[in-house]
Amino acid sequence: MPRETILVFDVNETLLDITTLEPLFARLFGDGDVMREWFAQLILYSQTMTLSGKYTPFGALGAGVLKMVAEIRGVAVDSTDLEEMKTLMGAMPAHADVAPALTMLREAGFRLVTLTNSAPAGSPTPLEKAGIADYFERHFSVDGVRQFKPAPQTYGQVAEALEGAPAHLCLVACHLWDTIGAQAAGCRAALVTRPGNALLPAEGVPVPDEVDSTLDGLARQMMAAFPA
Amino acid sequence: MPRETILVFDVNETLLDITTLEPLFARLFGDGDVMREWFAQLILYSQTMTLSGKYTPFGALGAGVLKMVAEIRGVAVDSTDLEEMKTLMGAMPAHADVAPALTMLREAGFRLVTLTNSAPAGSPTPLEKAGIADYFERHFSVDGVRQFKPAPQTYGQVAEALEGAPAHLCLVACHLWDTIGAQAAGCRAALVTRPGNALLPAEGVPVPDEVDSTLDGLARQMMAAFPA
Repeated sequence: MPRETILVFDVNETLLDITTLEPLFARLFGDGDVMREWFAQLILYSQTMTLSGKYTPFGALGAGVLKMVAEIRGVAVDSTDLEEMKTLMGAMPAHADVAPALTMLREAGFRLVTLTNSAPAGSPTPLEKAGIADYFERHFSVDGVRQFKPAPQTYGQVAEALEGAPAHLCLVACHLWDTIGAQAAGCRAALVTRPGNALLPAEGVPVPDEVDSTLDGLARQMMAAFPA
Repeated sequence: MPRETILVFDVNETLLDITTLEPLFARLFGDGDVMREWFAQLILYSQTMTLSGKYTPFGALGAGVLKMVAEIRGVAVDSTDLEEMKTLMGAMPAHADVAPALTMLREAGFRLVTLTNSAPAGSPTPLEKAGIADYFERHFSVDGVRQFKPAPQTYGQVAEALEGAPAHLCLVACHLWDTIGAQAAGCRAALVTRPGNALLPAEGVPVPDEVDSTLDGLARQMMAAFPA
């Protein structure tokens, strides 16, 4: 009994645990929390590039932003450090709650795909290394449209490839900037508020259709929202 | 001897010192540096709104982002705190190097205007309160196009209003996301790397035409780049 709605999962931080990058930041900056500053600046600049009609693959942009943050903080970063970041980003483990939630959703008849800001990687991909690639029928990257989320075209390409209307997609992410974009593109959106993430309460800012602090709770809400 | 090039100054942090907000963040979060996290998230979400075709005035978005950062950090923020932020944002002083550089540039024959993400404010405006409003012949806000920088339309409206080509404008800012957008819109761009800001070295990321760590040095570079 397949459900009509297709769940589109964000990858970095939503499925894969980016906190495994913290030791690198702790070593470089004496403070693992600088990882959050780096990630916020990476998203900020990915959006800047898209608004400016430019594109640099997410990994290369992430390396550049690491150099930028290092420059701001007066810290030296060398090619060994950049190589370590690349290795860590390619080997992030899945959050503990991911496999159980995906199993539940697939057994409930949902179709599952991924959509990531990261460019496609050779096999084994980060999702394969994390052992969760097989839950999904397809994997999408913003690299296909050379624009970063939350540009409407990034979500639109998924709808087009799956021959469905955006209204049949539900984006699942732990970043509000991602759910805002998906909803603006005509999709439904569900937010899992992993640590470091929250709603942005301001007039005119779209609110996700479902919000939960755990992927298990969010999965149950989505199953209730889309009865078989 | 008026020079053809019109210098378009960003306001927040480029002209006005946002570090005067730090005591509020120190009081709320026990760490004044959280101001940087708030500001990065504010820019990130302003871009998200624009990419998603939405608009919430910068001040209201800034208040919402403060609540978001507070939620993430498990801190309570009440209406008094939000009122204090609004007051502080409306009363930021000019950086010490601003008046001398603007004087020098105006005496050299440059036309000067401002372009800010902030919505227009009633008189006295923040620039009037800081005592530097009169250096400029006009003040522009992204509110006119309901899109935030670095969307091309934000720079385009300035060129249109001044009946000049974008190529006759030079944006002056301390944020690379601003210079990237201006250059993509066909303007020239100059970056002053105030503390907390730096270049982003990655392939495909536009480099500003002039870069200096002081506004004085930047002004001299621009005077040399555009001989009278």
